[in-house]
Amino acid sequence: MNVLPIFWLVPVSAVLALIFAWFFFKQMMKADEGNDTMKKIAMHVRKGANAYLKQQYKVVGIVFIIITIIFSIMAYGLGVQNPWVPFAFLTGGFFSALAGFFGMKTATYASSRAAQAASKSLNDGLRLAFRSGAVMGLVVVGLGLLDISIWFFVLNAVYPVASDTHNLLIITTTMLTFGMGASTQALFARVGGGIFTKAADVGADLVGKVEAGIPEDDPRNPATIADNVGDNVGDVAGMGADLYESYCGSILATAALGAAAFLSQPDQAIKAVMAPMLIAGVGIILSILGIFLVKTKEGATMKNLLNSLGFGVNVSAVLIAIFAFVILWYLHIPNYLGIWASIITGLVSGILIGQSTEYYTASAYKPTKTIAAASQTGPATVIISGVGVGFISTAFPLIIIVIGITLAFLFATGFNFDLANLSHGLYGIGIAAVGMLSTLGITLATDAYGPIADNAGGNAEMSHLGPEVRKRTDALDSLGNTTAATGKGFAIGSAALTALALLAAYIEEVRIMFVKFLDKPMELIDGIPAKDASFINYIHHYEVNLMNPMVIAGVFIGVMAVFLFSGLTMNAVGRAAGKMVDEVRRQFREIAGIMEGKAEPDYARCVAISTKAAQKEMMLPSLLALLIPVIVGLIFGVPGVVGLLVGTITSGFAVAIFMANAGGAWDNAKKYIEEGNYGGKGSPAHKAAVTGDTVGDPFKDTSGPSLNILIKLMSMASVVTVGVAVSYHLF
Amino acid sequence: MNVLPIFWLVPVSAVLALIFAWFFFKQMMKADEGNDTMKKIAMHVRKGANAYLKQQYKVVGIVFIIITIIFSIMAYGLGVQNPWVPFAFLTGGFFSALAGFFGMKTATYASSRAAQAASKSLNDGLRLAFRSGAVMGLVVVGLGLLDISIWFFVLNAVYPVASDTHNLLIITTTMLTFGMGASTQALFARVGGGIFTKAADVGADLVGKVEAGIPEDDPRNPATIADNVGDNVGDVAGMGADLYESYCGSILATAALGAAAFLSQPDQAIKAVMAPMLIAGVGIILSILGIFLVKTKEGATMKNLLNSLGFGVNVSAVLIAIFAFVILWYLHIPNYLGIWASIITGLVSGILIGQSTEYYTASAYKPTKTIAAASQTGPATVIISGVGVGFISTAFPLIIIVIGITLAFLFATGFNFDLANLSHGLYGIGIAAVGMLSTLGITLATDAYGPIADNAGGNAEMSHLGPEVRKRTDALDSLGNTTAATGKGFAIGSAALTALALLAAYIEEVRIMFVKFLDKPMELIDGIPAKDASFINYIHHYEVNLMNPMVIAGVFIGVMAVFLFSGLTMNAVGRAAGKMVDEVRRQFREIAGIMEGKAEPDYARCVAISTKAAQKEMMLPSLLALLIPVIVGLIFGVPGVVGLLVGTITSGFAVAIFMANAGGAWDNAKKYIEEGNYGGKGSPAHKAAVTGDTVGDPFKDTSGPSLNILIKLMSMASVVTVGVAVSYHLF
Repeated sequence: MNVLPIFWLVPVSAVLALIFAWFFFKQMMKADEGNDTMKKIAMHVRKGANAYLKQQYKVVGIVFIIITIIFSIMAYGLGVQNPWVPFAFLTGGFFSALAGFFGMKTATYASSRAAQAASKSLNDGLRLAFRSGAVMGLVVVGLGLLDISIWFFVLNAVYPVASDTHNLLIITTTMLTFGMGASTQALFARVGGGIFTKAADVGADLVGKVEAGIPEDDPRNPATIADNVGDNVGDVAGMGADLYESYCGSILATAALGAAAFLSQPDQAIKAVMAPMLIAGVGIILSILGIFLVKTKEGATMKNLLNSLGFGVNVSAVLIAIFAFVILWYLHIPNYLGIWASIITGLVSGILIGQSTEYYTASAYKPTKTIAAASQTGPATVIISGVGVGFISTAFPLIIIVIGITLAFLFATGFNFDLANLSHGLYGIGIAAVGMLSTLGITLATDAYGPIADNAGGNAEMSHLGPEVRKRTDALDSLGNTTAATGKGFAIGSAALTALALLAAYIEEVRIMFVKFLDKPMELIDGIPAKDASFINYIHHYEVNLMNPMVIAGVFIGVMAVFLFSGLTMNAVGRAAGKMVDEVRRQFREIAGIMEGKAEPDYARCVAISTKAAQKEMMLPSLLALLIPVIVGLIFGVPGVVGLLVGTITSGFAVAIFMANAGGAWDNAKKYIEEGNYGGKGSPAHKAAVTGDTVGDPFKDTSGPSLNILIKLMSMASVVTVGVAVSYHLF
Repeated sequence: MNVLPIFWLVPVSAVLALIFAWFFFKQMMKADEGNDTMKKIAMHVRKGANAYLKQQYKVVGIVFIIITIIFSIMAYGLGVQNPWVPFAFLTGGFFSALAGFFGMKTATYASSRAAQAASKSLNDGLRLAFRSGAVMGLVVVGLGLLDISIWFFVLNAVYPVASDTHNLLIITTTMLTFGMGASTQALFARVGGGIFTKAADVGADLVGKVEAGIPEDDPRNPATIADNVGDNVGDVAGMGADLYESYCGSILATAALGAAAFLSQPDQAIKAVMAPMLIAGVGIILSILGIFLVKTKEGATMKNLLNSLGFGVNVSAVLIAIFAFVILWYLHIPNYLGIWASIITGLVSGILIGQSTEYYTASAYKPTKTIAAASQTGPATVIISGVGVGFISTAFPLIIIVIGITLAFLFATGFNFDLANLSHGLYGIGIAAVGMLSTLGITLATDAYGPIADNAGGNAEMSHLGPEVRKRTDALDSLGNTTAATGKGFAIGSAALTALALLAAYIEEVRIMFVKFLDKPMELIDGIPAKDASFINYIHHYEVNLMNPMVIAGVFIGVMAVFLFSGLTMNAVGRAAGKMVDEVRRQFREIAGIMEGKAEPDYARCVAISTKAAQKEMMLPSLLALLIPVIVGLIFGVPGVVGLLVGTITSGFAVAIFMANAGGAWDNAKKYIEEGNYGGKGSPAHKAAVTGDTVGDPFKDTSGPSLNILIKLMSMASVVTVGVAVSYHLF
């Protein structure tokens, strides 16, 4: 076997993504930054965001150094880990942080420019904000695929696939571990960013809106800048790191599963490994095309705008469906029709989950209207009804995932459901995740557009721009809320599918470690039939069986991890918001003239408080996520870890959807009332709905999205520390 | 093998329980019923409760007829079910309903008498209320064990264990199905009762306390009687049916597991089957002893009272630990020390889970104090902090369950962790559940005491008894709240262990059906070694393996069932409470003189509204619980069902604990503020805390406890319909 010549497409499209990202960035930087007030406010936000990111990367850097040392000991001291892991871990983290940094830098430069563009026309505002979001989307996919390409070249130089057919398995499983770096960095970005943004938001609302009665984004509120910084560090950098991880994780896991599925047919194996990378590469090109398609005519209505965004995304999706077929047909992978069907299954699942999120959270539909109606009997019924809607809203996405994995599996096995085809079926689940994420370049652009539009609105409000401009930025913001809802569903759905692919890859890692553990050199994988028998015995016969109480214990612990993690992040926001409330109250009390707009509040101090609280509060939940798989592995071994991952993925997915949708629905129920229903702004119903919205803040922006990372990171941590679970375990 | 002579102990203790229940009932009926107002109010509540129960039993009766017809078709038409199932199903339901009926009748007669007794002395009040609760406890264990005994005699007459060693397996697996009847009736009791009680409670609070500003249990509030009725139908009848099911389910599952574990040693098998029944029998006698030990001296403080209750419960627990050892030693079961250790594991786990509930919900500890403190910044932070505490509070009970099942399994296998010992380990998990529930007679007495004391308080308030009496009934109520907290934890913990035992028993049922499915007559179980090989292949090799996507699909669906069920019950309460709010507002508006206490509100109408709403709203979630296992079996077969049960049990346990503890903590945070902290009654902090309390009502009294039933019923339904999953399935 040999590396296919067409592989060059992969690094080329990665570089292409980065070139276009740079192009869009330059284009945005050339735009008018607005008047001095706008510049000043943007500068405040930018400084706050940079200060946060600097502090965040410092803390994460220390964590990375410690983990790298531990991995080095495991790899070189104890010999229970692949020797490349420490390096792969570092690059994964570095590229993820870089993507977050670029995305956030762009967003903070774009806000005042988007506000200024909106003061000219709605279309100019939309275009500037969307193309700035596209920088984030393209940087994420570009850096992700670049990292994958580089590692593939390096490892192929050391373990040439041409010389030994089993080198492909070594390469793919080694590459998988760089996802661990991306996961770890993403965890801190999501949890830290989520705590930061909601501490600021809840704190600003509780004192500003509720106590002092001043509107949102009022420059007199000391926490306002922190709130806007939060949109950038939480929604931009956090979301970017999350999807960077899903993107790389799904491609790498599928590559590893492909190498394993076609172990006995080397010429097919290289195709199966290349396929996800090629699909991702073509997906980048189609995303760029889609981004250019997002154009609007002068005088476009809101619906036109939405259609215009949708047009770009849908064209990319339809084209990737066609091109995926072309790629698979060109490669001539066995059962390429079935594998193509698996990809389509993933694509469609992603769209459906996004749409169900939209249904459960948009005020045009019944669930959110029910919550709004419940506000007439006070905050308690708002919460009860929101929790009820949130719980029920998990049903449809869970069924979609069930149908999705079942179909993806069955298609890839050619509906031949037999133990011998297990690996092929798991490959099908992996490539479904790749299909879902293939056009991430443009879907992430629509996501990142949201907080940029939000910040543009904040900038316009604080700069006291005219009502016409404010109306336009509100319209842009409202469009962003819609894309954010589907984007959230998409992020959770892709995280679940990626985590399932990683779970499958975990078993392949166990296979390799198992051979190693039996003191057979790696090359002996050649003798697969014989080895495989004992391996299958180990994995399939008893150990990973659901009747094994160690497995059930693992499932219980997995569920526990999800609930404990959610509780810790909820409480973190509660505590941090409390500190923010104290600070805002203090400034209102101590800074004379603040309420009359004569004195400037101490914005930086609020940013510093959120930063400090976020850094402090993110440690415990993050450590938990990193340590639980190792501890479970040490006590219950591989069966416990497999149970753990199943428990975490299934319940984590449900809780994430519950929190995201309940939070989104509360948010929009409040907006629905603000539109004049049930008494409108200032009515008792509105007050009750504000309570729901505030409760929903940490639900939808801290705990919920952090679970996306939890389920992937636990899988990654299990993959990377598989040697520990295989070699040392109590039971 | 032969039935052991000592088996007579089982029916004898069952009858003993019923005799003492009758004795306590008569004793209570002889007590003074109080003045005319007290009698009238008690009569209102009693009439309301009877009306509800009549309606409930009518609806449930129809459901039972339909299911019995379906089971008859399955058993006699399709031949995929044990022919005894329709009969066993009916008796299970009948006895469960009977236990609920007696318990509730006692409770509704006891409330005014307890209030009257309290007007004499605190001790008289405690004793009357507690012994009335004991009626419920003893009726539940008495009827449960009686039903088990009768079925054992009947089935032994048809399939004498003396003539064929495999008849024992047939008997035990047949008996198991009567748990299905108990489960189904319990589901409707818990869900219907839960919706009834919280619709009335939330409705009464929202209009009475919040809008009209009148105190709780004020006779001017039309929903007050419905609220008191709700305590009886929800907390007494619902809780009783729940634990009746756990009690029977754990004994029957363990018996079936015992027969399976010792299949090749008939003389040991009969002992393993008898052991759980004998332990339950002795547990009854010790419970009666414990009940008599609950005595107080004149002038006892609250702490004395608590200690006095605790003394009775603890003496029973310590004695059962000793007697369990004696029984096992007398029976000379192999590894009786290990099995005894499993029982102790169950006992201790139950106590620890109860104590952790107490820690997370009592105002003496940090979690509830944190929630109370959060009320200073409004209702939103109360909710955020309560949700955070609720999530975190799941960690300890989940770890206890993990340690509990692991230890119970390992003890019972003699720490010899091998496939051959799997059945023995599962028997250990079953008997741990039996250990936890062995002294249910007295633990349930302390639980049922709570709502009786609560109703006594309501009666005293509505009858305008003096402040001294009201203070005493408040003290009794407060004691009841403490026992209710530990009781709730105990109910959830025992439900989880019982469900796990049922899951294990499910696999044994599959074994029998598998033999049947292969067209071998039932008697051919004789040839176990040969059959077993193919069976183990079926179950252990591939199908129930966690890498099988059908299993993972099942786990996802199981998690979905829990969330959907919780959402439906939450929304049911929301809707029903809305109707109650409308009705109470209408009566305040239309009935002249109601607020001045000159006109009597239309209590019956509120009861009717709650009744109707409960009956209507309980259908969808209940059908869901019954149908999902069947549908999953039809699509994904046995692997899907096993996944389903694991998903439901693990996530259902976590969600149940979350909801119970968040609800309990909100309740007590409110009470803590009412004690004068953070401004006391009427302060903004109090108002915020009342919101938390109202949200917590459906959490802790509807959705949370209903999940106990869900996890058991889904297991039971899977056991009963196992033939469908084995014979017909899509994949």
